[in-house]
Amino acid sequence: MDDDNRPGAITVLDPEECRALLASHHFGRLAVTVGGAPSIFPVNYVFEDPFIVVRTSDGTKMDAAPLSVVCFEIDEIDEAVGRGWSVVASGHAEEISHAVDEPSARLRRLPVIPMAAGQRERWLQIEVEAIDGRRIGPRSA
Amino acid sequence: MDDDNRPGAITVLDPEECRALLASHHFGRLAVTVGGAPSIFPVNYVFEDPFIVVRTSDGTKMDAAPLSVVCFEIDEIDEAVGRGWSVVASGHAEEISHAVDEPSARLRRLPVIPMAAGQRERWLQIEVEAIDGRRIGPRSA
Repeated sequence: MDDDNRPGAITVLDPEECRALLASHHFGRLAVTVGGAPSIFPVNYVFEDPFIVVRTSDGTKMDAAPLSVVCFEIDEIDEAVGRGWSVVASGHAEEISHAVDEPSARLRRLPVIPMAAGQRERWLQIEVEAIDGRRIGPRSA
Repeated sequence: MDDDNRPGAITVLDPEECRALLASHHFGRLAVTVGGAPSIFPVNYVFEDPFIVVRTSDGTKMDAAPLSVVCFEIDEIDEAVGRGWSVVASGHAEEISHAVDEPSARLRRLPVIPMAAGQRERWLQIEVEAIDGRRIGPRSA
């Protein structure tokens, strides 16, 4: 794009760049539909292409997410200078807490470290089926 | 709470603290349900209690959000030290781009400054009907 360096310019990120950002971060927001309305949950995750792997406790997101399409977002925005990026992924979620197949067991060995203390023994995999990213503002400082 | 200062400790924020955090920030994530599945949109906003006011361009979020329940999230997480907070609000969304009543006109005069360039002449108000916040990790550094 010609105007990448203008303030407020939006650059569409290519899928590889989106996946690289997903792989290099470990905190994001999961949106699930509960009773027709969306809910957002801040979560820690690991991206093992094509899966976003979330480890969590019991609760709404585990009840609502499995077998449904969910949305996942990460970003890094500097409000003060009006620059940043965001990546939004969506796909089917499945609970793999008790799945005995080797791919699921392998995902459960990933170092998904929740920041919050407490029991976090339910695992969710989100298969990234669509991914979309944007950069706002000048590409480099 | 007795264990506010332990690493990973979760403190529930009271509604006043959640509203103060909403009021002092201007970037968040809006989740809407589109065809049964959730979508997340990074947006700039202003909080004018009880309304989160978003100014945006045409597109999915404006088509899906009006007259439905949406979810809105802000956070500030320091992954490196495992500390931060998040606030999640939900409520009915309504498009106020063309509403002629004085309260809507007043909301449209709020300084909602999108970081992204381009036409942003559609306004959405989200009435905060439920709000919930969490702090993770020690309260102060």
